[in-house]
Formats: sequence, structure tokens, C-alpha cells
Amino acid sequence: MANPDKIRAVAERVMKMAQQGNQMVVVLSAMSGETNRFVDLAGQMQQIPDPREMDMLLSSGEQVTISLFAMAVKNAGLDAISLLGDQVKIHTNTRHTKARITNVDPELITAQLNMGKIVVVAGFQGVTDDGHITTLGRGGSDTTAVALAAALKADACEIFTDVDGVYTTDPNIYPKARKIDKITYDEMLELASLGAKVLDIRCVSLAKSHNVPLHVRSTFTDTEGTWVVEENEEMEALPVSGVTYNKNEARITISKVPDTPGTATQIFSPISDAGIIVDMIIQNTRSSDLTDMTFTVPLTDYDQAIEIITDVAKEVGAESFNGDKDIAKISIVGVGMRNHAGIASTLFKVLSKEGINIMMITTSEIKVSCVIAEKYTELAVRSLHDAFELDKDVLPVGEQ
Amino acid sequence: MANPDKIRAVAERVMKMAQQGNQMVVVLSAMSGETNRFVDLAGQMQQIPDPREMDMLLSSGEQVTISLFAMAVKNAGLDAISLLGDQVKIHTNTRHTKARITNVDPELITAQLNMGKIVVVAGFQGVTDDGHITTLGRGGSDTTAVALAAALKADACEIFTDVDGVYTTDPNIYPKARKIDKITYDEMLELASLGAKVLDIRCVSLAKSHNVPLHVRSTFTDTEGTWVVEENEEMEALPVSGVTYNKNEARITISKVPDTPGTATQIFSPISDAGIIVDMIIQNTRSSDLTDMTFTVPLTDYDQAIEIITDVAKEVGAESFNGDKDIAKISIVGVGMRNHAGIASTLFKVLSKEGINIMMITTSEIKVSCVIAEKYTELAVRSLHDAFELDKDVLPVGEQ
Repeated sequence: MANPDKIRAVAERVMKMAQQGNQMVVVLSAMSGETNRFVDLAGQMQQIPDPREMDMLLSSGEQVTISLFAMAVKNAGLDAISLLGDQVKIHTNTRHTKARITNVDPELITAQLNMGKIVVVAGFQGVTDDGHITTLGRGGSDTTAVALAAALKADACEIFTDVDGVYTTDPNIYPKARKIDKITYDEMLELASLGAKVLDIRCVSLAKSHNVPLHVRSTFTDTEGTWVVEENEEMEALPVSGVTYNKNEARITISKVPDTPGTATQIFSPISDAGIIVDMIIQNTRSSDLTDMTFTVPLTDYDQAIEIITDVAKEVGAESFNGDKDIAKISIVGVGMRNHAGIASTLFKVLSKEGINIMMITTSEIKVSCVIAEKYTELAVRSLHDAFELDKDVLPVGEQ
Repeated sequence: MANPDKIRAVAERVMKMAQQGNQMVVVLSAMSGETNRFVDLAGQMQQIPDPREMDMLLSSGEQVTISLFAMAVKNAGLDAISLLGDQVKIHTNTRHTKARITNVDPELITAQLNMGKIVVVAGFQGVTDDGHITTLGRGGSDTTAVALAAALKADACEIFTDVDGVYTTDPNIYPKARKIDKITYDEMLELASLGAKVLDIRCVSLAKSHNVPLHVRSTFTDTEGTWVVEENEEMEALPVSGVTYNKNEARITISKVPDTPGTATQIFSPISDAGIIVDMIIQNTRSSDLTDMTFTVPLTDYDQAIEIITDVAKEVGAESFNGDKDIAKISIVGVGMRNHAGIASTLFKVLSKEGINIMMITTSEIKVSCVIAEKYTELAVRSLHDAFELDKDVLPVGEQ
């Protein structure tokens, strides 16, 4: 919710849908810039702001947008009511600033809907059993929307964003990128974990577990966006749905580590104790008793990780270690992979043909990721997008 | 609450008092400028903003200051908790944007105080029995503070303001104005109704009915301010406590009105129906059947009032009417008046000696007000201040 104009724009679209006979519940986030302003104010008060008080502060942001939204609706002659997280009773656990929704009471919203009102709910916030206000952390408002959709057994949950849907790859890198019409929850989860920012993992995961169809679409246009739904046959027709990249990781390799039980623990425990999240790990066995250990960490944690590894490498008796900040992770995602053989080998062939060396590989049932030199990122994305024909519309089942 | 610096300044003073062994409850208003910002945003959404949604919007302002305040306290190593009006349970009626407090639950605050916390409460807001957020309108945060002080049976309610107390008159007009150490609720009520802006009438009235001692003092200095308390003998020693003026009224006179029953109703009903508040009314009988009717209205309503009177004067058969926007109301206030004869006549003598004509006079038990030409305002205030020796300290009882 950027500003008053955007609030009015969304209000108009919601009213149009209401006038078509739909009962509408709207979940709003704070105006853009507000959260940063609050974080700045809090920082002026307390070095590490108290989480309970931080939630009290942050949750005031949605209070502003929901009341303004309700006013915009009323100005157009329709009825609306704004409700806070603790008024709806969006119950959460007590983990302030990153609480989890435990339960949502649908009664008040249902009652207001049945009175013909558009119900405008503050996203991102809830309330503990003791009556303290909590916030949900990243992706909070989307998660609230999905939780409400599930509790109210809504037909769908529409997520209005700055983009008009989920794309086969980043259109900034490859203009041939195509908006995906339909994608499965699992694919969306992979894309979200791989760095696609359009939806948060928690929101998709909640939608999957309650089977709430998500519609990711633009705030500014009326065109259909991307539906995130349960898997069906049609969606398996295409082996790959999207290509993603992530330049925010760094690689560290420890060479010639004595391959004894417990070595991995010795290496990764201190990293994890420092709060550093390791993404990919691969181990190449050199000989019966020596191995190379390669892993990736977030770029921002790289220096700290190298410091830790300097000590750890000595402890485990490794010969040497080295790191590389100029890497990128390229991934292809698609539920169709399960039924199409040779997807990984196509990927290898494409990259090899372009002279791109693959440093690491990991796979899941519906994903293949590989680490390459950062400078090849765009080339790799475009080549893979072409090779898997992602610019072409999905073919009807059977014509694949 | 102007800004983060001011929040920190007040937090430091509150902490000092807490460390001296006092249980402290702090009531805060929104940061200055916020209310205007919200009113502006609301105006962009709805021509006449919905009152229920306006309250939802406005009440977010204190949510920001109370959480920041609690952070500032915690940063200094003491414990604090911020509470909203609906968390405390500050019950109000349902008149959105100008609700009245009906009841305050002291339990939650008492429990938090007993846990050693400084309790930081959002002023200006409450909650209806149906769970809707309300705001209290003008003087709201001060009223909240007094209501809490009453419910908690507090020793006193300290009101931190931009000025360091209540003065014998406006120091901008007369530098000899002296800060009053103690004043009665009734005097303060008169001063507030006469235009002294330091305290709202509702707040003083509530303090009086629950006998809560008020201490009006500066946010920025440690010096004692003005105590507003029950009347005692000492306070009756001085006949006059203060001189006030109000330039925001205008006079209207209807001449030679036939003096028949119902004439006053014919004149004042349409004025009142237009939402115009008439302050002073005097009636001079010219003869057995003709009378002159003079009254004052707020300056901002003058043009509308004249329009109404143009019609009304014809209807009641008056000979003519005229008005004057360049007037001022000068008042002297003091509980001591009851026991000191001749206060009014001293006032008349002083003004007459300066050649100031008195147009209208009204009196109450502890007040004399008169309307004069606006240009004499400052002269009248200074002369009366001198005549009643308001620049001198209160004398001990018996030495008067």
C-alpha cells in the first residue's frame, strides 16, 4: 500500500467485485515507507528495540491504511468496516515480530459480510491469548490474507502486487520471460525459496495446506495474473515452469579434509552457531581417506564464515580452504520434471555448450540448481529459458 | 508529544520519579503533527470522514508514542509496558470522535505496576462495549490521565505541557504575569471556559468530581508548576486569581424589540439551530414594551449569525440591529470574590479611569466578565492585573 492513490485504486477494484455480488474481505499492509520510519524511530529509543513494544509500534501502520480504505469505500456509497488483528481475533503464538497464526475466528467477519459490508482487515498483525499485539514478520500481510481465506472458506485469495504475476524468469534479465498462467504450490514454494520475491514461502505453504487458490496480480491493471493452485495433469505437460537465479550466495571449499566420522559436524556446527544458514553442501571424495567439502553461505555472512573456517580447517586437519564471492545459483523448477526424463542432462548440455562450468549441483523432485561463475548468470538464464521453450505458451495436454 | 527527543525527556523524568519509589502510570498523546497528517489523509479519502473509521485512524497516533516511550524506559534498564485504550479497558460511550469515558478498569494497570513496571497508556482513546475504538476529542489525553488517576486512586495527576503552569494573565500581554502556585478546580474551570488553553474543561471537571489533584507543569524544567486542587482557606485570601481575555467573540445588538413572551425564543432558536453557541446575553428594557437585546457569538460564526438576524429582526418587529467584530471579553476570576466585597466595582473603576467603556457585563459567583472595545484589551488586562496586585505573591492567611 504505497499511498492514498493506491488505496483508492484498490478500493475501486474491490468495490467493482463487490457490486458483481461477491462478499469481499480485504487485507492491507502499511503504507510503504512507514515500516522503515518506525524502525528508525525505535532505533532512536532503544539499541535493540523490545520485540513486544516493536509490535505495538509496527501494528499501528496497518491501522492507518485500513481506516483510510474503509473511508474510500464509504465515500463511494458502499458500506465497509475496518478491523484490527485483535478485533477479528487473529490468534498467534507469543513470538513477537515473527509470530505464527494459530487460529482465526471467522465469526465477526462473517457477521459483517452478511450485513453487506466490505470488511477491511489489518494484515501482518495478530493477538496473543494474553491480549498482546503481535506481528507476523516477513510476508505477513499475504499470510494473513491466506489464513482468513482458509478460515472463511473463500473461493480464492487475490494478492495484489507491484508486478502482474509470476514470470518464467526475471523479465529484467530476459525480456522473453513470459507470465505464467498457472503454477503449483510446490513450484511456487521452490521459486520463493530460490529468491523469487513475489510471494513469501509461509504464505504459499499455508495456501497449500488449506488448498486456497492464490491469484497473484497487479494492483494497477485488470488483467489476470498467475494462479497458484493444486497440481493437475495440464501442469505436468511442461517439464520446466521457470528459471531463477540468485547472486546473493558465496562458495567456500575446504580441501583434503580427513574423511572421518564427525568431521562434518566439526565444520558446520560453529557456522550454524554463528547464525549462518548454509544452503548447498557437496562433498567430493578424493581418496579413501581424504575429501573436499564445498558449501554456500549468504554473501553477507561470507567474511564471518571465512573467519570461522580459518580455525575449523586447522582443527579438522584440512590441507587448505578457499572461497569465492562471485558465484550465482541458477535453478530450473517444474512439477513436470517428475515425468520428463533428462531434464538435468539438458541443463548440463546447455551450460556446457555455452562454456559455462558447473561448480555445484543439487536437485529435488521438482528442481535442479547449479552454482556457476556470477558473470555467466544472464547468459545461463537466457540459454535455459530458450532451451526449455519457456517463452512459448503452455501446450494442451497430449500435444507435448 | 512533539518528537523522539521530547519522549526521551519525559521518560527520564518519569524514571527519576519511579526510582524514588513511586508507581508511575504515564498517559501520552500522539506526536505533534500526526493528527493533522491523519485529518489530511482522511480528507483525501472521504469528504466527511466516517467517525468510526476516523477514530480507528486517529488512535494509531498514540500507539506510536507509547511504544517508543516504553522502549526508552527499557533502554535505561527499567521495565515498562505500553497499553492501548482497549487493552486497559477505558470504556466509553459510542459517540465516535468525541466519546465520553464511562468507566476505567484499574486491574490490568495495577497488576503491571505491582510487577514493577512503568505503565504507559495511550491517551485520547477508549473502547465501546462492542469493541470499537473511540477517541475523546479535545483535551482527550489529559482527560484520560485524570480518569486513570481517579480509577487508580493516584496521589496526583501531573500534566506536562509546553508552559510551566497557569499564569495570572497571558505573559505575552503582560510580562508581570505571575505563575499561580495553587488554584481551585472552580477557578480553573472558569479560566478554561474563558479561553485559557492550558487545560481542557472536561479534564478539570473530571478532576474536580473525583478530587484528583492536578499538577500543570513544564515538560522541559523540573520546577513546580501550578496545582489545581480543592478550595481551602488560604486560597480565599486573594480576591482575584487571574485576568483573562478573549478576542474571538463578536457582539450583535437588536434594538427596540417588542417585549412580548416568546421573543427571546424567536431570536435565539434559529441561531442555536445553526449550531452557533451564544455566550453572553443581556437585555435592556427601554420602556414598558420595547427592549434591546445584545449577545455575543464566536467571531467565526458572526457572518452567519448576522444573516440569520436579518430575517429574525423583521419577524419579531425590531427597529434595527447592528454588530461589532472588534470587541474583547475581559474577565477576572477568583474564589476569594465570594468573601471580598466590591470586586466588581473596583473593576469598573479601573476601566473607567482608563477611559474604557463597558458594553456588556456578566458575573458568576467567582467571575466578572465585561465586553470592551478590542483595542483596549492589553490596557485593560494590565490595569486590572496591577489593581488587584496579581504580580505579588499570595499572602499567608490573616495578613490580607
